[in-house]
Formats: sequence, C-alpha cells, structure tokens
Amino acid sequence: MLLLEITTSLDGFVAGPNPSAEEPLGQGGELLHEWVIATEAWREAHGMEGGEGGVDDQIVRERIARAGATIMGRRMFSGGEGGWAGDPRANGWWGDEPPFHHPVFVLTHHPREPLELRGTTFTFVGDGIDSALEQAVAIGGGAEVAQQYLRAGLVDELELHVAPLLLGGGTRLFEGHLGDLPQPLERTRVLVSESTGATHLTYRLRS
Amino acid sequence: MLLLEITTSLDGFVAGPNPSAEEPLGQGGELLHEWVIATEAWREAHGMEGGEGGVDDQIVRERIARAGATIMGRRMFSGGEGGWAGDPRANGWWGDEPPFHHPVFVLTHHPREPLELRGTTFTFVGDGIDSALEQAVAIGGGAEVAQQYLRAGLVDELELHVAPLLLGGGTRLFEGHLGDLPQPLERTRVLVSESTGATHLTYRLRS
Repeated sequence: MLLLEITTSLDGFVAGPNPSAEEPLGQGGELLHEWVIATEAWREAHGMEGGEGGVDDQIVRERIARAGATIMGRRMFSGGEGGWAGDPRANGWWGDEPPFHHPVFVLTHHPREPLELRGTTFTFVGDGIDSALEQAVAIGGGAEVAQQYLRAGLVDELELHVAPLLLGGGTRLFEGHLGDLPQPLERTRVLVSESTGATHLTYRLRS
Repeated sequence: MLLLEITTSLDGFVAGPNPSAEEPLGQGGELLHEWVIATEAWREAHGMEGGEGGVDDQIVRERIARAGATIMGRRMFSGGEGGWAGDPRANGWWGDEPPFHHPVFVLTHHPREPLELRGTTFTFVGDGIDSALEQAVAIGGGAEVAQQYLRAGLVDELELHVAPLLLGGGTRLFEGHLGDLPQPLERTRVLVSESTGATHLTYRLRS
C-alpha cells in the first residue's frame, strides 16, 4: 500500500518560484503548509503545546499513525538545492528531532551511512525506487520523487491537500508523462477544513 | 461580478492532449464533462428527459439561473482549432439550439455580425476584454480566455469543478503569469458529488 500525500496550491504547485537558501520552498511556498503547522498534532510532534483541532488535525494524526515509513528525495531531505553536502551535521532542515519517528528512506545517487536522529532513522537508498518500495509506505516528496512513483504506476492512493492559494509558478506536482492516460480515478474521501480553507481530496489509483 | 467556472482534471488540465476534428477537447477531454452531461438540468436544457439529481444537478441549475451572459474565446465558440472559418452555418459544435439561452460574447480578432440561434445570441467582440466585461457575467472558457481575465485581476469568483481523472497532458488552466502572487484565497464553498466523483470548489478572488 503506497500512499502519495502532498500539499498543492489551487494552481497545482507544490513549491513556489525561485527557491533560495532563505526560501527553500520558493516564494510563497511556506504558505502551502500553514494548515499543517496550525494543528495540535503537528505541534505535539514538535514538542509544542496548543494548536487547532478539527479536520486538519485529524489528517495529520492519521498520517502519523498510518505511515510505517516515509520515502523522500535527496533535496527534500537536505532542504533545498545544495543544502546537504555530505556532512551529516548539516541537517538544519529537519532539526535535531525530525517529526517522523519512523524509518525514512532517502532516494539518492550518493548513498551513505544511515543517520539516526532521536527516533528517526534516515536510510539512503541508491538502487532505485523498487528497493525503497519493499520497505516504505508513504511518499514524503518532493515532486520529482512523487512523479517517479506515479510514472511507474506504483501509487495506490493519492491524497492531495489543496491549500487556498495561487502561487503562479514553481514546481508542479503533475508534470510530464505519468503512464497510461487518461485515467479515471475513484474518489474515496473529501475532508473540508473550515478553519484554514484547506480541502483534502483522496483518490484510489490502483484497485 | 465576474465568475470563472470551469471543469479541470485533478492534474490541472481543461482539455486533453492532441485535439483534432474528431476530438476537439483532446484525448480523454470529453471525460471531463461527464458530470455535467449526467445531470437532469443539462438534459432539460437540451430538450431531453431523465438525468441525475443531486449536487452536480444543483451546480448546473445554478449556472443556468445565475449567468446573465457568458464570455468565451473564438475556439470555444467554434469547437476547436479551425472549426469555424467564418461560415455562420458551420456551427456544429453548439448545435442548432445552444444551451445558453442568454447573450454570449465571443472574443475574437475577426468580429462579424451577431449570430442568433434559438434564444442564444452570439456577439463577436473585437476590442478586448474590458468591453465584454461591461456586459457579461460568466466566463465560459477556454483556458486562454480564463487566463486573460485572471491575469487582468478581473475575476471575482473562481469555481473549479474537479473531475476524478488524470489527463496527463493537454491545456492547463493555470499557465503563465497571473498577476500579483502568491495570492491567498478565501474558499467559500465545497460541494461533493457522490454519484460522479466531481468536487466543486469555489473561491473568492476579489472582495
């Protein structure tokens, strides 16, 4: 059961234009994730109090409870282009205590020793998407990794969190060829957050 | 009050790839509109009996009741590239009785005399989007016309009908620069069709 779960702007971008060291998610890209950061579950996972309940919180709790492991790309691991240059201490992006608390598989052309950080072990996988799939459950992103699995027809479930936002540019989730198309999908759930305006759409891609 | 109301695939396409005379909406493009064609309201407007009630039907009824006029591009009027070549009889796309029954403004570089077809008058507007806006209410499409109004910041309300479908290519609704961005939006409504899997998302773009 492979789950692709990602936040997109209404115009289809999962990161804004012109990413930089200061704005690794591009201009406006951080706005995408406001719905997550507002939740009680996210704050809990980061050792903070407070936060909102409701639909967004439910979604984040599900994600934490459900995923036995996460797959992500090298750039998502390192926090933007050139962020991590082989130095295991340069893990400024996810902090000293990453929020996963389960195995994370990082797809990379430069495998290295696993990195353990307070309950989260990052394992670096160099031999393609299949070997990561034998072990992992949720695709963390970014867009290129998501597209790799979509193209290979390996995604069972697609959950899109549509943030109430136009970014106007940046990295698209859906770009290039994605396999056998057109593909009708079965929509299995819609959850609507009144507080943040995020809309959570889930589709089954494989039966 | 200018309303942009359009059906998109989950991956952001309002028409499929490789449009042709046989498939003016591109490969798979007709699947986008299955939710409309299934409704009682659409069938009524086309002089047919039967059809589905429910959320999709509600949306189509609203559209018919609400729009005092429609704006569309030349290609949407003519049914694809090169469909209408100046011959007022070659209106095979919308048929002898177009479903609008209110004024339709067609943006074109080649204005011609208005065309009246059983309750729908097509007026051809050559002098830009402002003059059409003085008169019209709903933007019918296609994507280029929609983008023109989005870019000009003239759209008050955006209603996206998200069809449960991946097209993988074709014409994107959101392409190129769209004005001041990032732009947070106020989501004003979500309607969920259980029968067709379409999700109807409405956002306010201007207050």
